[in-house]
This record gives sequence, structure tokens and C-alpha cells, in this order.
Amino acid sequence: MRITALAGGVGGARFLRGLLHHLDSRADGPHEVTVIGNTADDVTLHGLRICPDLDTVMYTLGGGIHPDQGWGRAGETFGVAAELAEYGAEPQWFTLGDRDIATHLVRSRMLGLGYPLSAVTEALCARWQPGVRLLPMSDDPIETHVVIDDPEGEPSADGTPAVKAVHFQEWWVRLHAAPVARQILAVGIEQAKPAPGVLDAIAEADVVVLPPSNPVVSIGTILAVPGLRDAIRATKAPVVGVSPIIGGAPVRGMADACLSAIGVQTSAAAVADLYSDFLGGWLVAPGDAQSPMPEGVTLRAVPLLMTDTEATAAIAGAALDLAAELG
Amino acid sequence: MRITALAGGVGGARFLRGLLHHLDSRADGPHEVTVIGNTADDVTLHGLRICPDLDTVMYTLGGGIHPDQGWGRAGETFGVAAELAEYGAEPQWFTLGDRDIATHLVRSRMLGLGYPLSAVTEALCARWQPGVRLLPMSDDPIETHVVIDDPEGEPSADGTPAVKAVHFQEWWVRLHAAPVARQILAVGIEQAKPAPGVLDAIAEADVVVLPPSNPVVSIGTILAVPGLRDAIRATKAPVVGVSPIIGGAPVRGMADACLSAIGVQTSAAAVADLYSDFLGGWLVAPGDAQSPMPEGVTLRAVPLLMTDTEATAAIAGAALDLAAELG
Repeated sequence: MRITALAGGVGGARFLRGLLHHLDSRADGPHEVTVIGNTADDVTLHGLRICPDLDTVMYTLGGGIHPDQGWGRAGETFGVAAELAEYGAEPQWFTLGDRDIATHLVRSRMLGLGYPLSAVTEALCARWQPGVRLLPMSDDPIETHVVIDDPEGEPSADGTPAVKAVHFQEWWVRLHAAPVARQILAVGIEQAKPAPGVLDAIAEADVVVLPPSNPVVSIGTILAVPGLRDAIRATKAPVVGVSPIIGGAPVRGMADACLSAIGVQTSAAAVADLYSDFLGGWLVAPGDAQSPMPEGVTLRAVPLLMTDTEATAAIAGAALDLAAELG
Repeated sequence: MRITALAGGVGGARFLRGLLHHLDSRADGPHEVTVIGNTADDVTLHGLRICPDLDTVMYTLGGGIHPDQGWGRAGETFGVAAELAEYGAEPQWFTLGDRDIATHLVRSRMLGLGYPLSAVTEALCARWQPGVRLLPMSDDPIETHVVIDDPEGEPSADGTPAVKAVHFQEWWVRLHAAPVARQILAVGIEQAKPAPGVLDAIAEADVVVLPPSNPVVSIGTILAVPGLRDAIRATKAPVVGVSPIIGGAPVRGMADACLSAIGVQTSAAAVADLYSDFLGGWLVAPGDAQSPMPEGVTLRAVPLLMTDTEATAAIAGAALDLAAELG
């Protein structure tokens, strides 16, 4: 079975770990999993190109992730960061671990030599052996910026409050998504092309899976890469998704702050609606089983909390079961 | 008193620490020390621009140096390097410490933004407060390469063995200067200009000092920056030097391997001869007091082992005393 999954960071990575665990337990293998990773929260800090979502998937599936926080490296140290602070190097709101920095050094060096991000990601994965083929959604730089009010800016002539755009990471990490997102912009996405292999992985999949990643800044930006959403609409494979919302709140992270920005309710049904042009099956938590679903979407209610790998494997198994029914 | 010193790495830095200690003890201060640092052993590794000699001076005078080895940071850790090795990132013969990497990150980022090395060095020194004005000899990239035999190469038609050029750091750090240096090349030096402030610091000095740095790859390359040697010849200040050779052997490092490459004997007199067009005074060890000196060079014999800061301060004081006699 060829499974193609879109993925953001922590939620997507944990789901994928469960998926691989589930696949390992099946007798009908081997199976191939291709992951199309979000790159729109990538950022350049201290001259290093950082791909938080790709790295979270790579570290999680490769056994290097910090087990509790779900991002960053296990056994991390912070010698470099402490020194950068001594130099007063900005920003100081994003702390890079020493182990993590090695990844960014290898990546930045390869990018500087002209290798595309997809080749860099493949090289990094040669070490981590994540058990999936990890593809960036695009080799072209795309960065999510968030438009927020600027209390120090001049209001416009008609009294509209001043706004400013900050990098997604600044809004998310430094500001904890507290300032209302007036707009969320994926800068560079119109000119971006899907990375090599991305469209084929969708066209040739037996199942396409949407893990419970952020529907706006992770899945949403992946789908916004020109040609990508059309490929998902066109694939013959059933498309099944796992709701990132349980009972009106995100399972993890601050997806509600992102959904509000695009005028979408924080509910399992509203998220399914974002995907209604291609979604075949939708897993929701038992409490959301009565949600009105978009036409053509088959609802399935199962416990959705990814409390451990076993529980997550069960969710992934339920998603594949639903796909098999739809297929 | 305005003192301008040329300096390489460990030997130069230790001498300068002694010089500052000596100046602190004098009643006729304040004194200004400008250091013109060698940049020809700079190297780019893992995408980071590394300036070993500038950093050794900065860390030594700023109190951050590893006390025993004389280079690198005290209390250093190696989290990044261990991970780089896991990735198989080359080269692995040059191990970068975490604290040190922060310096290179700040430098590389600023260089990437277009700041010249002199501005970067000033910014780094704003933290370290080395007590001197530290100037790179040039803002233009200059790299010392060493021509060595290539046992795997094809000999030429006339039977001349094949040679290859390696970066100075590879010869020095990886190969421990063991392969005979057929030639030592300062790549880029013909096109280089002295960094801002360098020529003025020489012209306006009351004393010019040559610490016991490597006469070929440190002092030699500084002097080879176009215009720099002429400025030292032209300055009205007395020029005094400290021999890096005691009794036919380098005090530290592998200067003999470099001297052989340029056909110069490893002796205090032969090194003085390299500087004979501008040298006024030359400090040698007591055992070298009978050396024949170039005409016009005043010899002074004092103990030259920089065993601790006090001993080094005495050497620096003797150098300044000699300059005062010449002045």
C-alpha cells in the first residue's frame, strides 16, 4: 500500500509515528509512506535555515525527538544559544539547541552550495532513517507571515488601526499567538512549485491521509502550493483526514487562533468543510459524532487523543479502515 | 604611548596579554594598543567563517581563552560537533566547540549581510573588551595554502612528483605540518587591501612591535598585504621584535616547517634577517646573544619563555625599553 500523508509539525509527526507502528503490525506489508511536509514555517535565524516541521517529522520518526515537548532533540544542550545571548544576537525568543544547530548547519551549507531543499532533506534523512520518504512541499522558499495590530503604528486617515506583519514563528513562539491574526499570508507561495515527487506521490497513492495538523498554517499552506490541491482532487485514492479539533478546541497548539484569522469556526465540521472538495472520510472524536458534515464526506467517530504510540496507531488504523471502505 | 602590534595566534595573543599587563603596571599611562591580526589562516568550515588568529587574540585578551591549550574557549562543550560527525559532515579533523561556534555564527551572519570583517571584529570585541583595538590585516579574503607532495597524483613527464595544495589549516591541524611544504601561498593577497585603520595605526604609532608569532604564515602574511610592509618601513616609530626562535627551535608551534618552505634557517638571526628592511631592535634568548645580526638591528638578550603573564610582561617591557632606546 502506498500512503501519502501531508504533515505539519508535532501533531503530524506523532500521527505518522502511530501510522508506522500500525503498518508494522499488519501482515500485508511492506507499505510505502510518503510525507509531504509543510515548509511555510521555515525561518532563517542566526544565518541558519531552520525547517521546524520537516525536522520534527524527521526527529520523531528517526528516534531523536524530545519525548515530552514533541519538538527539538532529546538530550539537547544549549551551549551555542547561551553564547549567542552573550553577544546580544537577536532574536533571543527562539532558542536553538546544540544538536539541532548541527542539522541547520548541514542544511544551510548544502542550500548555500545550491542543493534544493528536497535534496538536503533526503541527505539529512539518510542519517535519521525515518522509515518514510520525506518531501518538502516545495523547494521554493515560502514563509507564513501574520498580520497583527501595531499599537505603536500610526492609524490610517480613516481611523483603521495600524497593522504590521511578523513571521509566523514570531507570532507563534514569541507572542504565543496572543495578538489577533488579522490575516495569514504565505509569502512566496504564488511563485512556488511543488517539490520533485510531490504530485506523483499524490497521483500514485493508494490512500491520501491528512493527519491532525494545523488546518491553516500546516495543511492549509501545503494545499495552497500551486497544483497541489488540484492533484489531491484528481487522485483516484481515497482521501481521509483526522480532525485536529475535539469538541471545539484544538487537541494541541493554537489552531483556533489560526482558524479565526480565516473566518472559520473551531470545530471538526468546519475544518472538514475546508477540505470538502476532496475529502472522502473524516475521523472525529466521539463527542463530535453528531456534527453536520459536508456532503460526500463519510464520518467516523473514534477516540482521537494521541496519548501514546499504541493509541495513535489505533487512530491511524481507523483512518486506513475508513479509506478501505471508501476505496 | 600608541603601540601597534602585528599578531598571529597563540604566541601573539600571549605576548599581547603580557604587554597589557606590563602597561597596566606603568605610571605613564594610559596607552593605546592596536593589534593588526593575521587573517590568512581563516577558513570556512560547515558554512561558518572562522578567523582563528583574531579569535585567539580576542578570547585571550577578553578572558575567554582555554588557559592550557591557548586557543578555543574555556569551559567549551562539543554538542554540535558530535552531531555534525553523526551526519558525516566533513571535515571532521577540525573540531569546533559550541561556544566558539556562536562566535562564528555571529561573524558569518554579519559577513552575509555585507559587513566587512573589520566591522564584524569590532562588533565581536564589543562583547569581549580585549583592551586593544583589534584590526584584521585586511577585509579581503586571503587564505594560506600549502603545496605538498601528492603521493596519489601522477608525476609529470619529466619525473617531477605530483603536488597538491591544501588549506593551511588542513596542513597544520590535520597533517600536523608533517608533509614538507614545497611552497606556501597566500591566495588572494595580491588583490587585498589593508583594512581601514591599519596603515594609519602603523604611521601614527609611537612603537611598532612584532610579537613572537610565526614569521612565515602570521607576520609574513601580514607584511605581504600590499602597502603594509611599505608603511612599516616608512613609519617614524621604532620597530622592535621578539624572536619566535630560541636556540634553533620554535618556542611553540611548527614555525620551522614554515621557515624551511621559504628556504630560511630556523634561527633567531635568520628571522631577524626577514625583517631587516625595517627592524630596529630584536629580542633574543640569552643563548642566542652571539648571533650575527643584520646591520642596523640592535640586539637585546632576555629570557624569552612566556611561562606566565608576569614573565611575558617582562619580555614586553624589555621590548618597549629597547624601543625607547632606539626612539
